[in-house]
Amino acid sequence: MTANALPRLPRARVEEAVRIALAEDLGDAGDLTSAAVLPEGARACAQIVAREAGCVAGLDLVAAAFHALDPAIDVTRHASDGAAVSPGQILVDIEGAARAILSAERVALNFLGHLSGIASATQSIVTAISNHKARICCTRKTTPGLRIFEKHAVRAGGGVNHRFGLYDGILIKDNHTAIAGGIGPAIEAALAHAGHMVKIEVEVDTLDQLKQALAYPIDAVLLDNMTPDQLSQAVKTIDGRVVSEASGRVTLKTAPAIAATGVDFISVGWVTHSAPCLDFGLDYTSDD
Amino acid sequence: MTANALPRLPRARVEEAVRIALAEDLGDAGDLTSAAVLPEGARACAQIVAREAGCVAGLDLVAAAFHALDPAIDVTRHASDGAAVSPGQILVDIEGAARAILSAERVALNFLGHLSGIASATQSIVTAISNHKARICCTRKTTPGLRIFEKHAVRAGGGVNHRFGLYDGILIKDNHTAIAGGIGPAIEAALAHAGHMVKIEVEVDTLDQLKQALAYPIDAVLLDNMTPDQLSQAVKTIDGRVVSEASGRVTLKTAPAIAATGVDFISVGWVTHSAPCLDFGLDYTSDD
Amino acid sequence: MTANALPRLPRARVEEAVRIALAEDLGDAGDLTSAAVLPEGARACAQIVAREAGCVAGLDLVAAAFHALDPAIDVTRHASDGAAVSPGQILVDIEGAARAILSAERVALNFLGHLSGIASATQSIVTAISNHKARICCTRKTTPGLRIFEKHAVRAGGGVNHRFGLYDGILIKDNHTAIAGGIGPAIEAALAHAGHMVKIEVEVDTLDQLKQALAYPIDAVLLDNMTPDQLSQAVKTIDGRVVSEASGRVTLKTAPAIAATGVDFISVGWVTHSAPCLDFGLDYTSDD
Amino acid sequence: MTANALPRLPRARVEEAVRIALAEDLGDAGDLTSAAVLPEGARACAQIVAREAGCVAGLDLVAAAFHALDPAIDVTRHASDGAAVSPGQILVDIEGAARAILSAERVALNFLGHLSGIASATQSIVTAISNHKARICCTRKTTPGLRIFEKHAVRAGGGVNHRFGLYDGILIKDNHTAIAGGIGPAIEAALAHAGHMVKIEVEVDTLDQLKQALAYPIDAVLLDNMTPDQLSQAVKTIDGRVVSEASGRVTLKTAPAIAATGVDFISVGWVTHSAPCLDFGLDYTSDD
Amino acid sequence: MTANALPRLPRARVEEAVRIALAEDLGDAGDLTSAAVLPEGARACAQIVAREAGCVAGLDLVAAAFHALDPAIDVTRHASDGAAVSPGQILVDIEGAARAILSAERVALNFLGHLSGIASATQSIVTAISNHKARICCTRKTTPGLRIFEKHAVRAGGGVNHRFGLYDGILIKDNHTAIAGGIGPAIEAALAHAGHMVKIEVEVDTLDQLKQALAYPIDAVLLDNMTPDQLSQAVKTIDGRVVSEASGRVTLKTAPAIAATGVDFISVGWVTHSAPCLDFGLDYTSDD
Amino acid sequence: MTANALPRLPRARVEEAVRIALAEDLGDAGDLTSAAVLPEGARACAQIVAREAGCVAGLDLVAAAFHALDPAIDVTRHASDGAAVSPGQILVDIEGAARAILSAERVALNFLGHLSGIASATQSIVTAISNHKARICCTRKTTPGLRIFEKHAVRAGGGVNHRFGLYDGILIKDNHTAIAGGIGPAIEAALAHAGHMVKIEVEVDTLDQLKQALAYPIDAVLLDNMTPDQLSQAVKTIDGRVVSEASGRVTLKTAPAIAATGVDFISVGWVTHSAPCLDFGLDYTSDD
Repeated sequence: MTANALPRLPRARVEEAVRIALAEDLGDAGDLTSAAVLPEGARACAQIVAREAGCVAGLDLVAAAFHALDPAIDVTRHASDGAAVSPGQILVDIEGAARAILSAERVALNFLGHLSGIASATQSIVTAISNHKARICCTRKTTPGLRIFEKHAVRAGGGVNHRFGLYDGILIKDNHTAIAGGIGPAIEAALAHAGHMVKIEVEVDTLDQLKQALAYPIDAVLLDNMTPDQLSQAVKTIDGRVVSEASGRVTLKTAPAIAATGVDFISVGWVTHSAPCLDFGLDYTSDD
Repeated sequence: MTANALPRLPRARVEEAVRIALAEDLGDAGDLTSAAVLPEGARACAQIVAREAGCVAGLDLVAAAFHALDPAIDVTRHASDGAAVSPGQILVDIEGAARAILSAERVALNFLGHLSGIASATQSIVTAISNHKARICCTRKTTPGLRIFEKHAVRAGGGVNHRFGLYDGILIKDNHTAIAGGIGPAIEAALAHAGHMVKIEVEVDTLDQLKQALAYPIDAVLLDNMTPDQLSQAVKTIDGRVVSEASGRVTLKTAPAIAATGVDFISVGWVTHSAPCLDFGLDYTSDD
Repeated sequence: MTANALPRLPRARVEEAVRIALAEDLGDAGDLTSAAVLPEGARACAQIVAREAGCVAGLDLVAAAFHALDPAIDVTRHASDGAAVSPGQILVDIEGAARAILSAERVALNFLGHLSGIASATQSIVTAISNHKARICCTRKTTPGLRIFEKHAVRAGGGVNHRFGLYDGILIKDNHTAIAGGIGPAIEAALAHAGHMVKIEVEVDTLDQLKQALAYPIDAVLLDNMTPDQLSQAVKTIDGRVVSEASGRVTLKTAPAIAATGVDFISVGWVTHSAPCLDFGLDYTSDD
Repeated sequence: MTANALPRLPRARVEEAVRIALAEDLGDAGDLTSAAVLPEGARACAQIVAREAGCVAGLDLVAAAFHALDPAIDVTRHASDGAAVSPGQILVDIEGAARAILSAERVALNFLGHLSGIASATQSIVTAISNHKARICCTRKTTPGLRIFEKHAVRAGGGVNHRFGLYDGILIKDNHTAIAGGIGPAIEAALAHAGHMVKIEVEVDTLDQLKQALAYPIDAVLLDNMTPDQLSQAVKTIDGRVVSEASGRVTLKTAPAIAATGVDFISVGWVTHSAPCLDFGLDYTSDD
Repeated sequence: MTANALPRLPRARVEEAVRIALAEDLGDAGDLTSAAVLPEGARACAQIVAREAGCVAGLDLVAAAFHALDPAIDVTRHASDGAAVSPGQILVDIEGAARAILSAERVALNFLGHLSGIASATQSIVTAISNHKARICCTRKTTPGLRIFEKHAVRAGGGVNHRFGLYDGILIKDNHTAIAGGIGPAIEAALAHAGHMVKIEVEVDTLDQLKQALAYPIDAVLLDNMTPDQLSQAVKTIDGRVVSEASGRVTLKTAPAIAATGVDFISVGWVTHSAPCLDFGLDYTSDD
Repeated sequence: MTANALPRLPRARVEEAVRIALAEDLGDAGDLTSAAVLPEGARACAQIVAREAGCVAGLDLVAAAFHALDPAIDVTRHASDGAAVSPGQILVDIEGAARAILSAERVALNFLGHLSGIASATQSIVTAISNHKARICCTRKTTPGLRIFEKHAVRAGGGVNHRFGLYDGILIKDNHTAIAGGIGPAIEAALAHAGHMVKIEVEVDTLDQLKQALAYPIDAVLLDNMTPDQLSQAVKTIDGRVVSEASGRVTLKTAPAIAATGVDFISVGWVTHSAPCLDFGLDYTSDD
């Protein structure tokens, strides 16, 4: 019983997302194939099986998809979000009305594959830098409408979350600086107007900008598109006074060298906007 | 003025999707950074620029994102969905209130990058088989809630759409066949119960199953996970009597050999569930 | 246990429709009469009784209406959707909190009467042509917002469904033909752009148009406003090559002669847009 | 400029109803036929024409349907809700993008036909009793979700509205009386608990019940299922002290004799729950 | 078992209001503090305790708030809406998952404090005039979106409800009279167009206006901003022919003198728009 | 043109809130009085006038309310949110359709009065401590569903916002501490699990607890229910290392002494949960 366990997704949000996805897939006419081909009372046993190795996320959505169509379906989980899976591993046993199971299958797998893809991508890069203190964090480059779930998948994969939106932190980026008339004026405005419960991070592209930023009582700097050498120098310059975060199209390949520079965080857009789906299948095992 | 131009996304759906995405990013407190750092009446000129080559999709969502925050923002498009873009190419000019432009930026780019990623992936595989008659079609393996937009992106990339959901076509898959007691009984049930405006496609894994299926007046067969050799034989067996569609983790690499077998369609889940984001940036150019 | 049993309406849609209807009837102040007149803890037994003969549809909505106000109400059904009912027949027994039962009564009966009216109208015309092979199908002339339920009621009455909307089939009508520049160009455009899972039907008003249409590989023809003689000739001309469907203000009286011409389908707008309500009452039988 | 002109339907409600109806008809894939068959930029002129005589209602919904798909469509009305129409009469001229016009056609006509059917039914029975003082009023037997529009259609046809729901008036019916232990106790409870802005009507089936009811300061009595003779006696008994309303499966045929008894109101469920659709067509006239 | 017990708030409305309030408080990131600080499986016992004396309202919303986050939380009520509470009194015992209890605490208390504030304000003024026949009624001056709950709180405090909105009664106010051209024309228009189930009340500011109004068969008069002397004269003039209601910034201090004039109702905006919150706390008592 | 001007409320949220409030007030039957009493085409000029002194907030909602019913109504503002108003001051001129103006009046005034009440309460307490550095901030004790608007009103009155919800900051309160096993363990858990963009504040009730908390790198302390003497000592102990915030039923009377202790912030629940409405009226001035 520890506080750092991955918190569960809120029921109301899970059910709402599943409701939308099922409506999208079933339309008004419903599942024509199951209605035409499967006998009405037919029952089925099925399993959700991993087809490749990775890290799982989204099991609450899987269960909710089946239960939305028929609350009497038995859904037995053999893993939790954040677990590593290997090819062939059975994650979930499902038993109940055949029509409802096959009608919910694609929605369940779409959520599971998408979110496990994100968790797996995160885990791969977390693992790649595991001998450094740096932590991988995600960005606001998420799929519109699914941010709450994708942020969860990042945590399942061992990453941490940055801001959830524009509303829960200040991040002064290059465009803000340009319009505000420089890093100094931008930070001064932020310090003057930010609430006392709001952290301020400033994007800097050069060591010179970094020094300008460090002249103010800010909380963090985003070291954007710097080389490992520049990052090392930046870390030295910062000297622990503020949180340091590296960013800029970080990949699995470039991450270790970045982590080796001693930055506190590496933010990676790729894990949410470009992670390939993790492959799962629903295998019919027998009728009841 | 031709009928086959890419139909526009429906306004109501575009506005609804943008509304949800902006609410997700702005929350209740709104864009803290812009409110604190940018002067209230500041204006800005900015451009959306492609950072890599690909095929664009989602420009209606881009425009809608800016207009949702401020209808007075000028959005001038220099390309249409389906256009090829090269690195550095300017797609959109934006001019108006600086706060609104920066507040909508991420939502606009998230839609554009995600959908252009799908269009680009589609286009790459369409191009790879362009000397064959086969057409690339997408599947129901889409991101929950975004199917209407992802199907559009596939069309923008030169692909065609398969079913939109479970409601607009019958596709008898292996699990249906297993529960129904074989391909014959499954097809017979489908023929007996399908509406007269509904097409019937049957998944077959072997030539033997194919022959069983062809004994019935069905519309199409899904040749699943067959080798090019098996596909060639299948195409010969079918002899134009029904539409032929190949499927099974088709990649950019395997597609040409599959297309060479003479199948009519190749369905590819990858273009919607695993296409990496296409990279775009919003560059501030000047104040007004 | 057969596949052709009437599929159940999806729970989520039933609950949503009932929620909207109850909100419409209860407003903010609620059921003033029951609150003022009925003792708070009073219980009641009641029955839903058919006041005339017909075919029932909508029982899931009836049950959902009572349960939405009080999940503890006992609702016992003595019939299923699609059953024939005679005057005085008890369809449902209801027992529970008197206030909730009387507050939900009208919503329950409005759904039941409306949908049973459609089922009964359908059944009457299905019966009238029962010695012919033709099947009765419905149109898109449905009550806005209730199409999913009205299509279900048509099936309950023994009819079949045509398209559910503009999205699940192509039907080239006279206005399309006029704008496209003739039947030939219209069909050619459709064949060029239709997805491979989409059927194409073409409306024709004359035998000449029919012959033009049959020159193309279409799936069905809509023989609009033809006399039985013309229909007979059309059926001969078609000779089984495509599905034939007769339409044009078909009534109970004109249907048999149309069916006798050998057409496959007769589409009837009347059963959804003009069927009179079937009369049911809720009779109070006793307090608990 | 008079106060008694038919008030307009509220914009927000009209747009919401049209949005739901269009979503129902267009789904995710949209209007497949128009997209495939009609050239993208094609324009069209069309007219909505009455195919039979009646009273029109719902023109705001018609205009909103076209404008929801394309605000640039010109919609010119030649009549207002409540107007009498004759066969062949042109009600609306429409000019604009051909695809949008044909895509919105069915939704526009479904609203217009349904509501004009109700207005026409109302008008027919209003006309039938026009030489009596009695007014026709509607009931809560409306189509779920459309009550606001159907009540409007009744007014368009010359009728008046009864309660809009359970929340805006007390009507003590037979089931309430039975559970409350008689007409006296029921009325006493109502008088004790009703708000001072709420009217109280009591259903009575016999003259004896009527006399019991008249002993209390109620506002109206509902004379249910009485013969004309009984009604005449009831009217005499009431002697103008309360409003009198006759009800009970009133038809066009039975209404005049009921009106002749001198009752103030005749409530008719039939005009909302069973009125046949009024037939309108959309005729293509030319391209621009 | 009596009819006049305070009717329960409708489940659907309670759950909807709680869903909105929890979404507002939890956002996408959820309760950061509980997730970080409380061990995942920790359980807690807590009590909701009154910190001051007053009248309670909103307990259904309290229970719904906890159950929305975790249906397994035990919520035991020791009071009902309408009950008087004294400082230190325990209203509710709560036992279950610690995280869910603390996450729902503020939403539960916000509803409870706000509605109990209204109930308490109402009760105080009801008590102040309890030796007169006049009853306290509320107005449409309610918090947008919460009217159904605030009207309930007024009833919990012993008050009665006036109109719920513009839709369930006619109240001719000074602005109506001015535009209509006087009290006479305004009332004549109302009598001509009001439905037979709609009551008519007329605001009058002087005895002269009152006499004009009494010349018509209206149901009630609103005596606005009159002194007690004027009110006494008005009551005499009315002589029981219509309901009399006094209004105009009535306070706890001025109410008794107004009630002493013999008016039937005193309407008070203050109890809904300006009642201070009643203070409650959630006290942690122990872990399970 | 300064960055610290009060940011405007987002259009989408304003329109949504107004839509809900108007639906609540108009129901299905609409404004019965205006429809019956006011001539259809009548126009009116009206003014919104302050009836007492205070600080205004909510003018965007006022304008939106009138425009939702009729976009052609002219709404001219003579003040902005945050402005001081005196009795009799005209804030808004309104000109247009009389029916729409009177139908929207109450919704407009309810928002304006409620939010101006909050702004005025805030301003009064801000003024009371204006010779100290302390700033007034609000809490999460807001009206459910209206937090975004009430937080805005606090800013209009010169206050600042604390957390918007549970999701944008960590605040460890007494119940968290109790369940976590003390202030030390609670803070350690928070530091271990909080995101790097999340601030941490800790509630302490005694100087001893304060010292425990200051041993950790937290951002702020909430000094709860301390006397001015204790607060002075606390401020000395803190010595500028973290932000200090005083709380605990602060009133207009107690605020100055608290501010004099040198705390950075004083959080006040009263301004949002118990501020009385500020009185405004809509005065009809003439017809056009």
